[in-house]
Amino acid sequence: MSETGTAPGACSEQAGPLDAWLRDRRERREEAGLRRRLRTLPGRCVDLASNDYLGLSRDPGVVAAAAGALAEHGTGARASRLVTGTLGLHEHLERELCELTGQPAALAFSSGYAANTGVLTALGDADTLIVSDAHVHASLVDGARLSRSPVKIARHSDVAHVAQLLEERSEARAVVIVESVYSVWGDHAPLAELAEVCRAQDALLLVDEAHGIGVAGRGRGLVHGLGLAGSPHVAMTVTLSKALGAQGGAVLGSPALREHLVNTARPFIFDTALAPTSAAAAAEAARIVRTSPELTEALHQRARLVASTLGIPRADAAVQSVPVATPELAVRAAELLRSRGVAVGCFRPPSVPDGISRLRITAPANMELHELSAVLEVVREVLGDVAQAG
Amino acid sequence: MSETGTAPGACSEQAGPLDAWLRDRRERREEAGLRRRLRTLPGRCVDLASNDYLGLSRDPGVVAAAAGALAEHGTGARASRLVTGTLGLHEHLERELCELTGQPAALAFSSGYAANTGVLTALGDADTLIVSDAHVHASLVDGARLSRSPVKIARHSDVAHVAQLLEERSEARAVVIVESVYSVWGDHAPLAELAEVCRAQDALLLVDEAHGIGVAGRGRGLVHGLGLAGSPHVAMTVTLSKALGAQGGAVLGSPALREHLVNTARPFIFDTALAPTSAAAAAEAARIVRTSPELTEALHQRARLVASTLGIPRADAAVQSVPVATPELAVRAAELLRSRGVAVGCFRPPSVPDGISRLRITAPANMELHELSAVLEVVREVLGDVAQAG
Ligand SMILES: Cc1ncc(COP(=O)(O)O)c(C=O)c1O
Ligand SMILES: Cc1ncc(COP(=O)(O)O)c(C=O)c1O
Repeated sequence: MSETGTAPGACSEQAGPLDAWLRDRRERREEAGLRRRLRTLPGRCVDLASNDYLGLSRDPGVVAAAAGALAEHGTGARASRLVTGTLGLHEHLERELCELTGQPAALAFSSGYAANTGVLTALGDADTLIVSDAHVHASLVDGARLSRSPVKIARHSDVAHVAQLLEERSEARAVVIVESVYSVWGDHAPLAELAEVCRAQDALLLVDEAHGIGVAGRGRGLVHGLGLAGSPHVAMTVTLSKALGAQGGAVLGSPALREHLVNTARPFIFDTALAPTSAAAAAEAARIVRTSPELTEALHQRARLVASTLGIPRADAAVQSVPVATPELAVRAAELLRSRGVAVGCFRPPSVPDGISRLRITAPANMELHELSAVLEVVREVLGDVAQAG
Repeated sequence: MSETGTAPGACSEQAGPLDAWLRDRRERREEAGLRRRLRTLPGRCVDLASNDYLGLSRDPGVVAAAAGALAEHGTGARASRLVTGTLGLHEHLERELCELTGQPAALAFSSGYAANTGVLTALGDADTLIVSDAHVHASLVDGARLSRSPVKIARHSDVAHVAQLLEERSEARAVVIVESVYSVWGDHAPLAELAEVCRAQDALLLVDEAHGIGVAGRGRGLVHGLGLAGSPHVAMTVTLSKALGAQGGAVLGSPALREHLVNTARPFIFDTALAPTSAAAAAEAARIVRTSPELTEALHQRARLVASTLGIPRADAAVQSVPVATPELAVRAAELLRSRGVAVGCFRPPSVPDGISRLRITAPANMELHELSAVLEVVREVLGDVAQAG
């Protein structure tokens, strides 16, 4: 309960100016079966829904790094990076992210969302075409809209379409935005081909590695895995809040790009710097991912077990997704699982690119295999029950 | 140094597609004397530039709350609030923010920036006019742009102009966006008058209390101080990263507004939940601000000492600003102060509403008065030297 209803002096009998409109919107959501609610997870739940793919948010070394930063710097960075908010540990984080991904320069933001809106607003203008893959994340869509650039949507992972849009452009510059590993289908972008097209068309390929870091390229991301790290036609963004187990985001690319962002990225300039605890935790997590490829291997081993137990094609990604006939059945399956102590995610329209509802299952690298097997039996049972009842 | 220059396999000899453009932009900034650089603060510096107005980022109770959250939940929230990222401590934070501000409902975001873009994208549409005060923060400007609403700019704190724009509107709904305490001038918005105009014109007044919480209304914000808390025509946003010493932000208003945001605010839905440490720290800081009005009083006492020592009119705000003749002199004064161990902020075009460059000075509530007096003597000396030399 976050609604206290005890507003002192509240004229709560009076109607607010947007009340009728808010009510109308709510009713529409309810009719469409799309109302979302916030709930906390019961304590004894097995969490197969989180993005903490490697379990690093509770890694003793990562927690110790955060505790050290808390003791040294307190709970906040206290100012924008450009005023007095830049701490040595932000620079340490940026160095670790460079080491992990093989990029020459990095700039940390307060979230992956802010990194994506920040880089696009800084690079966009009327003479820079943005070519966006049809499946990219909301933060990239918002960044493109904020950028004041003309935006063209390319069919998903269609390299020829991207090439055509770049070739036909009248704008002097172009930025192509894709994700390395897409979260719903778990498919990989054709990065080598896209990089070649961008090179030929003198465009920048901007890759969101949100679901690639810790997962693809032995944990160092798909860009690194394909030998594209440091290519002048490729830049990337990462989030610190998924496989790195903390909070925040970063843009990685050339030193010139970094300097440009420091001077022009509004969600960097006008935002308080990343909290010391989050920066220190993510830096240590990045070091662990780089030096412990066996963690990423353990994640893939668990993903294989999820796919084989549930009889679904394995995605080369952390998230495995199980198609369910209807959104209602997907929600029902997720509810039943929750009542049996297993939290899974649920993808349904409009958050799926193809109208197919799915359960979203991630088995983190640090989960014991025998525990996972037992939990997957419960998932299999519930899916069977729901399919029969549906 | 965050640029390693050691990109493995980097074709770093090759030019990037945006290099010429990035270089051109950089040269223009240099010519205009507007290049910004990131630097860490030397260890022995007295920090008069931070937004940690009450010193709560290092308060033992606040730090202990963060440490407790770290031990219990680890370094990250691990998922979006809508999946499994909602923790009891997010709800606790939202309750504390309601208690502090007297609003009926609250929703936490990962930054104040995200709270502002989130609430405006969720409320905006083609039939909702946004009337924005000319001086509002970049995050509100970006939110208005993302909202797809028509936007009109009202002259700064000009109530009659706001009333006129609302009256003339053809849109069914309207939202007026202002800050409670503006950071450069330190002036207060005419909130009582604006709320009355909004009531008469059936518009929502959205107040950004970023610089009001911990400062105005005995720490509970200007909306509360003026008895407007809980009014159905007033909603607000706050940041957790200034007086509350942590990281994050929140939107406060009616339960119906909160429910609408949960369902429609993209920077809430598609963003990882606020880190446990930041949420716990901000909750404890909010409790302290509410129960210790003497902290806010100590802040104002120091602000009075800053103004009287430097001979400037006192702003009823945490930030006191000292006009300097030119941007170059302001930068030189700040540099000289830094070399003498005092960090101050520096406002210069284009970040000032009136073309006047200023030093930006905040003396936090927990700074000893005798220490502050000594430091202000240094500031006075440097300002005198610079004025003579300039
Ligand atoms: C592809 C992608 N990019 C960016 C983000 C945003 O990252 P953050 O949660 O750190 O804001 C997410 C998810 O949250 C994501 O899935
Ligand atoms: C008026 C105002 N609103 C919003 C923000 C953004 O808050 P945050 O730093 O938490 O993103 C700031 C400053 O950072 C601000 O000054």
